[in-house]
Amino acid sequence: MAEESQVSQSHPYVPRDLHLPGYAPCLLSMSNILSVFAFSSLLLVSIIWIFSGRLKKTKVDRVLMCWWAFTGLTHMILEGYFVFSPEFFKDKTGFYLAEFFNEQITGKEYSKGDSRYAGRDAGVVTVEGLTAVLEGPASLLAVYAIATGKSYSYILQFAISLGQLYGTAVYYITAILEGDNFSTNSFYYYVYYIGANASWIVIPSIIAIRCWRKICVTFQVQGGQTKKPKVH
Amino acid sequence: MAEESQVSQSHPYVPRDLHLPGYAPCLLSMSNILSVFAFSSLLLVSIIWIFSGRLKKTKVDRVLMCWWAFTGLTHMILEGYFVFSPEFFKDKTGFYLAEFFNEQITGKEYSKGDSRYAGRDAGVVTVEGLTAVLEGPASLLAVYAIATGKSYSYILQFAISLGQLYGTAVYYITAILEGDNFSTNSFYYYVYYIGANASWIVIPSIIAIRCWRKICVTFQVQGGQTKKPKVH
Repeated sequence: MAEESQVSQSHPYVPRDLHLPGYAPCLLSMSNILSVFAFSSLLLVSIIWIFSGRLKKTKVDRVLMCWWAFTGLTHMILEGYFVFSPEFFKDKTGFYLAEFFNEQITGKEYSKGDSRYAGRDAGVVTVEGLTAVLEGPASLLAVYAIATGKSYSYILQFAISLGQLYGTAVYYITAILEGDNFSTNSFYYYVYYIGANASWIVIPSIIAIRCWRKICVTFQVQGGQTKKPKVH
Repeated sequence: MAEESQVSQSHPYVPRDLHLPGYAPCLLSMSNILSVFAFSSLLLVSIIWIFSGRLKKTKVDRVLMCWWAFTGLTHMILEGYFVFSPEFFKDKTGFYLAEFFNEQITGKEYSKGDSRYAGRDAGVVTVEGLTAVLEGPASLLAVYAIATGKSYSYILQFAISLGQLYGTAVYYITAILEGDNFSTNSFYYYVYYIGANASWIVIPSIIAIRCWRKICVTFQVQGGQTKKPKVH
């Protein structure tokens, strides 16, 4: 009983018996961390939007370039930091990424929405690792592919979106199988765990369906031109 | 100590302290189970090969149809059984699927290669669930798509292959993060855990690369015909 109350004081996460020796509390406030994230994202999206305007691209393509730049850097910087900093929850310097992870994506504060981040759950680390290492750089490649009209533009966007959807599916299904009890309270459950991840279900789904259709149409056009498509 | 030796007698898996109340040993022998699997697979592949011969398809397409039929039914029947039979390790009737799972893919015997199957590890159940429910039926759709020359044939094969690769990656990386200590001995480690899964790395990789190239070529051809590809 004495031990339990000691554990309870050490970190704010659920389940309460999660063992996190050396845990240091958040130093930055939630609003501070979220405003830095919102400001950087807005700055990035604005830059991409302005530059893409010079490339004679459609608005859809320019929005897609903004999305891929945003999601790529989020994967690489925020999720990459989480994957390769297993002891972020001990950080006492107020370093932004440790706090942010704490706050938003994969850290001390986000762990209030899903303590498996602080607990280094193998499934979560794996999904975040694949996302940071493969999907992050691939997303930036997608910005370049759209900008320069590469022939692999659609299949690349399709591949990354599918990876994001698979990762999100693994993320949620493992949580359900393990009891879905990793949130500090229902605010964090809905805002962080459900809300912050919903974009990575909705947007990749739309992009994947769009790419699927574009590719099918291209094959139909070519099939129609050559009468009998030679499939080998 | 007494408790530990009791646990040790109950099942053959590693780690020895894995808790499997009600475990019943395999009734069928390894060679029995593997020969039934080999025979059914050979029969299936032969049927598909013969029927596809009437469709004026290239040999590559016919081989692909055999692969998708084989992998689709493996996903649906073997992995599907595992996912929806959480207590397969208690089976005492010698029911083939429970034993096979025991023997080959996801059961009592396969658990000798990876005890996370018997232990219902959340990551493994999630990956197998997605594979059985999504990739299994999609693989059978791929057989149909190739047979009838659908315009979505390549993008569908690409999507399934990517799912298989993502699943295998999650499977191995979570195992490494959790200590890679789930095999009864090195024979089971290399034959079941490495050997049986290697096909689902090599073959999907080849198919994914092939589909990627086919799709790029199609976009290049269309881009060349219309001079300026209208990408929107």
